[in-house]
Amino acid sequence: MAVAFRRFAVVGCGLIGGSIELAIRERLHGTDVIMLDRGDDLAAVSNADLIILAAPISANIRILPFLRPHLASHAVVTDTGSTKATIVGAAAGMRFVGGHPIAGAATSGRAASRADLFSGRPWLLTPRVETLTADVERVRDFAEALGASVRLVDAEEHDRLFAWLSHLPQLVISTLMHLAGSGVGADRLTLAGPGLRDSTRLAFSPPEIWRDILQTNHVNIASSLDALIAVLGRLRDDTSGEVLTEIFESAGGWKRVLDDAGGGGLPSGETK
Amino acid sequence: MAVAFRRFAVVGCGLIGGSIELAIRERLHGTDVIMLDRGDDLAAVSNADLIILAAPISANIRILPFLRPHLASHAVVTDTGSTKATIVGAAAGMRFVGGHPIAGAATSGRAASRADLFSGRPWLLTPRVETLTADVERVRDFAEALGASVRLVDAEEHDRLFAWLSHLPQLVISTLMHLAGSGVGADRLTLAGPGLRDSTRLAFSPPEIWRDILQTNHVNIASSLDALIAVLGRLRDDTSGEVLTEIFESAGGWKRVLDDAGGGGLPSGETK
Repeated sequence: MAVAFRRFAVVGCGLIGGSIELAIRERLHGTDVIMLDRGDDLAAVSNADLIILAAPISANIRILPFLRPHLASHAVVTDTGSTKATIVGAAAGMRFVGGHPIAGAATSGRAASRADLFSGRPWLLTPRVETLTADVERVRDFAEALGASVRLVDAEEHDRLFAWLSHLPQLVISTLMHLAGSGVGADRLTLAGPGLRDSTRLAFSPPEIWRDILQTNHVNIASSLDALIAVLGRLRDDTSGEVLTEIFESAGGWKRVLDDAGGGGLPSGETK
Repeated sequence: MAVAFRRFAVVGCGLIGGSIELAIRERLHGTDVIMLDRGDDLAAVSNADLIILAAPISANIRILPFLRPHLASHAVVTDTGSTKATIVGAAAGMRFVGGHPIAGAATSGRAASRADLFSGRPWLLTPRVETLTADVERVRDFAEALGASVRLVDAEEHDRLFAWLSHLPQLVISTLMHLAGSGVGADRLTLAGPGLRDSTRLAFSPPEIWRDILQTNHVNIASSLDALIAVLGRLRDDTSGEVLTEIFESAGGWKRVLDDAGGGGLPSGETK
């Protein structure tokens, strides 16, 4: 696949940044990639055609103004964060294309990086109306070259969707694990069936990343939490079982849609 | 292992009843087992030493008075339901030992039955103060002969524990899947990462069974739902990220306790 970029700089050396590096090395021969982490001099990006911000959301936003003076005039910046409206707004005036690869693994960190992490997975791009079409197409070619399946979506709509698809589930699972543990104590927790165990894999997610997500998508998350609280309140008052039946039938139907859509051929144990 | 019972009647031919039948045939040689399902004549239990009620909770409770006239004077009745206080109360005056094998599989129904379903899994018994010790010990021997690890627990305490360990998780996961699906629609649901998919396996659970559970454990479920709603409300108003950090750290710690306790050597794909 023809990719316009030849020189890459990846800022942030976790699972996503590390996997992007490996994927570039494996799939984009004849290109260069440099890796920058906290404390490194941002001036090193001055040779890069595409700068990929793969640090936590708040760090990506914080470095934007410090990055700007080092960018070549033709350079494009993209990011990999889980919320998009805030960073896309903060990057106004730059050649910036917001991005969100929907990929991850049960283990985070660079050591868990894999060249095929993005293979067969969605990678969303969130251009603004003023973003140059050529820049969007170049970032699209890049993500597709890494094996991902690119879709364009408005940044605001992205954040609304992922409040439902990712942020609400994470907050709920962590809360559930917190309450189940505190409610019964360590000894009794061992009585739990596989249902609780299987449902709470996300409870290992680190708070730092999710604090950034909560803060940069607060309005959408608050409104999905409100909707959840409203349904849970209806279930609490459901003496006839009618609300339960309605919710369970809806849930079973949507679960079938979700599973039929497939996991993109994910090896078992994958996450995010 | 010496088991006092020689003749078994299993009422209810789903996954649990079917697996009890298979486990008896495989592990308790020289014994008889008869299977009864909806519509069968309860008089058939008159030869049994141990009657195991493995129908849905409401059916188990409903047949108790119809069962009573057919029971041999030495016969003991036990059940396998997920809530205990209601049935234990309804069985007052009978030689009844409430039971709850913590076992299941991703697929329900007799076809999914397995002789080793209970192997290495907890099986709780909930005797009342007036229950004959000999009856409890006999049912304990029986459950252990099927490979389970027996623990005695007060019926009220059982129901409080399982509101946290099983009932709240099920209600929350179903609600989550219902809302994620309705919130984004079928096309966008395909953008979900493996996190949502992995966390929502329980969303296939049938409403009938859970209606019974909600109705027979309503007070405990309502109070755990209230606790959940309260924490979700704090997260919604958490602009600093402090509440999130506290919840996630607690959740990660409890998740470690849960996973370290192990799944009792469960084959993957197991459930309940």
